[in-house]
Amino acid sequence: MIHMKSRKVKLAGWGKAIAEHEMKFGDQTRFRLHKGENLLDLTDQAIAAAFESAGMTIEDMDCIVCGMATPLQAIPCNAALVHERWARHLDIPAMDINTTCTSFITALDMVSCLIEMGRYRNVLLVSGDTASAALNPSQQESYELFSDAATAFIVTAAEEGESSEIVYGAQKTWSEGAHDTEIRGGGGLMPAFDMDEQNREDYYFDMKGTRILKLSAKKLPGFVEQCMAKSGVTRKDIQLVIPHQASRALSLIMPRLGFPKESYADYVSEYGNMISASVPYTLCRTIEEGRVKRGDLVLLIGTAAGLTANFLLLRL
Amino acid sequence: MIHMKSRKVKLAGWGKAIAEHEMKFGDQTRFRLHKGENLLDLTDQAIAAAFESAGMTIEDMDCIVCGMATPLQAIPCNAALVHERWARHLDIPAMDINTTCTSFITALDMVSCLIEMGRYRNVLLVSGDTASAALNPSQQESYELFSDAATAFIVTAAEEGESSEIVYGAQKTWSEGAHDTEIRGGGGLMPAFDMDEQNREDYYFDMKGTRILKLSAKKLPGFVEQCMAKSGVTRKDIQLVIPHQASRALSLIMPRLGFPKESYADYVSEYGNMISASVPYTLCRTIEEGRVKRGDLVLLIGTAAGLTANFLLLRL
Repeated sequence: MIHMKSRKVKLAGWGKAIAEHEMKFGDQTRFRLHKGENLLDLTDQAIAAAFESAGMTIEDMDCIVCGMATPLQAIPCNAALVHERWARHLDIPAMDINTTCTSFITALDMVSCLIEMGRYRNVLLVSGDTASAALNPSQQESYELFSDAATAFIVTAAEEGESSEIVYGAQKTWSEGAHDTEIRGGGGLMPAFDMDEQNREDYYFDMKGTRILKLSAKKLPGFVEQCMAKSGVTRKDIQLVIPHQASRALSLIMPRLGFPKESYADYVSEYGNMISASVPYTLCRTIEEGRVKRGDLVLLIGTAAGLTANFLLLRL
Repeated sequence: MIHMKSRKVKLAGWGKAIAEHEMKFGDQTRFRLHKGENLLDLTDQAIAAAFESAGMTIEDMDCIVCGMATPLQAIPCNAALVHERWARHLDIPAMDINTTCTSFITALDMVSCLIEMGRYRNVLLVSGDTASAALNPSQQESYELFSDAATAFIVTAAEEGESSEIVYGAQKTWSEGAHDTEIRGGGGLMPAFDMDEQNREDYYFDMKGTRILKLSAKKLPGFVEQCMAKSGVTRKDIQLVIPHQASRALSLIMPRLGFPKESYADYVSEYGNMISASVPYTLCRTIEEGRVKRGDLVLLIGTAAGLTANFLLLRL
C-alpha cells in the first residue's frame, strides 16, 4: 500500500438492473434470473440507464471494462461480449478486471489511475454476475443469500473546477482464506468435462461462512484503521459508507469497524449479496434516492473471495 | 486511443515453464500437462526463476497480477490462488486482468500506468493457461495448435538513469469477431451443470480459423500503421517484434504488417500457441538467448479472442 495523490475522476452516469423473479426466504427477498434469461440483458438495461444519466453515448467511450467475478463464457472475456451488444460498430478496447466480489471497487481504483494518466478518458465500467447459475440448493446459507443483478457506471476525467475525485484506494489479500469462498470446478483445475455424480458439489458455489467471518474479524479492523490514517480522512467526513452487501452479518461487522448503523447502507434484507454488482448497485440506489449527492465523500468497502478487502474513498 | 507520455517502468526479472508431455503433429511440437498435473506447478517454476533473475523475493512485491485468459477456478480469481502459493504470510493484493490471449500485454500496459502513478511499485505479473483442459479432439486445427505453459515477470519502477520504459501502448476490440474464438460453455451463460451429450461440443474450445484470419487481415494493417505513427517510432528502430504465436499463419500475416521474417520471433513449430503465456514466454526466451538485451526497443503485438489486438512498445 503506497500513498499517492488523488485522481481527478468523476462518476458521470450510473444505471442498475435486477432480475425479475422474486423469491422469499423468511424476511429476506432475493431476485433471480429465470432459466434461459441472460445476465447480458440486465447489463443492457443498466448501460442504457447509465448513458441516459450521463447524457453520453457509446460513441463517447474510450474503453469497456467489466469488473465481474465470474465468466459469462470461459472465452472470450466478459467485456468482449458487452462490446458485442453495444460497440460492434466501434473499435474501443474491452477488458476484464477481477477480484471477485470487490471487482467493481478494484476496477474503479485501476481505471481512475488510467484516466489520471491519460491512458483513457471515458470508461464504461460494467459489473454483475449470474449468482443463480451455481448456487447449491443443499447449502442453505449461501442458497438463500444471493440475487442476480447488473450495474453500469460511466467513469470520466473530472472537468476543471469540479470537486469529484478518487481520494484514496487500497486493497489487501489474505490468501489463507482462498478456499473459504470458492467454486472449485469449472475452470482449468477441474474442467466441466470432469463432473460426475461424486464431485458434482465441487461445481457449486461453496461458502464457509463462519471461517470468513472469523478471518474478516481478525484482518479488517487493522486494514480500515490503516486506510483511514493514510487517507487523512476521519469517519465524520464521510457522508455514507457503501459496504459490499455480503450477508446479514453486515450489521455485526460494521460497528466493529467504527461504522454505526446510520453511517452505512444496508439493503441485505431487500436483495442480499449480488457478488460484483453489490457495491455499485447500492451506490447507484443511494445516489438515485438522494442519500448521497455531488460533492459528498463516500466510502466503498468490501470483502471478496481471496480473502480480499478493498477500501476506496471517493468524492462524488 | 489517446496519446500519453511513456512510463518509466522496467522488467526486472523473468521466468518461464512449459509442460513436460511432448506431442508431435507432423513437424509441429506441442507440450501438454498430464491429467492430474496443475498449471500452478508451472507458475511456481516460472515465479521462482523470475525472482532469481531479478534478485528479489515475494517480500519485495506490492501486488500480484494474473494476466491469464481462463479461470483456474470459477471463484476466486487466479491471482488469489497464486498468492496462496507464494504470499500466504503476506497481505499484498491479488487481481486478474483478462483480454484472453493478449492478457499479458494488456496487464503490462495497465500495470505500467499503475507503477508510473505510484499506485504500486513492484508487481509480480503471472500468465499461463491450461489449454489442454478444453481442446476438442475432433477439431484438428485447434487440437494440434496449443501448448500449456506459464510465465512470470517482475515489473518495477525504473531507477534514475535507467532507460527502460513502456514507450507506447494501444488496444482495440472488434466484437464482430466475438464468437470466432470461444468456449461457449462453462460460464454463467451455459453452466457446467447444463452439459449433456447434445451440447458437449459447446464446452470445448472452438476456433473459426478462416474467419479470424480474414478479420485480422482487414483490421490489423490499419491498427499497426496508426500505432507506429502515434508512437513516433519506425520499424527499423525496433530490435525485435514478439508476436503472439497464434498459429502457423504468423508467417503470412507478419510480412503484410511490414515485418519481414528476420524482424520477428517465430517459434510456432517448436511450441505453438500458449494462449496468455505466448507473448511473455517468447519474450523471456529471446531475452535468455540474447536476441534482445537491455536498452533494446521491443514490440509486443498480438490478437486475442474478441477480436482484440494489442500493441506495446517497450525499451527493455
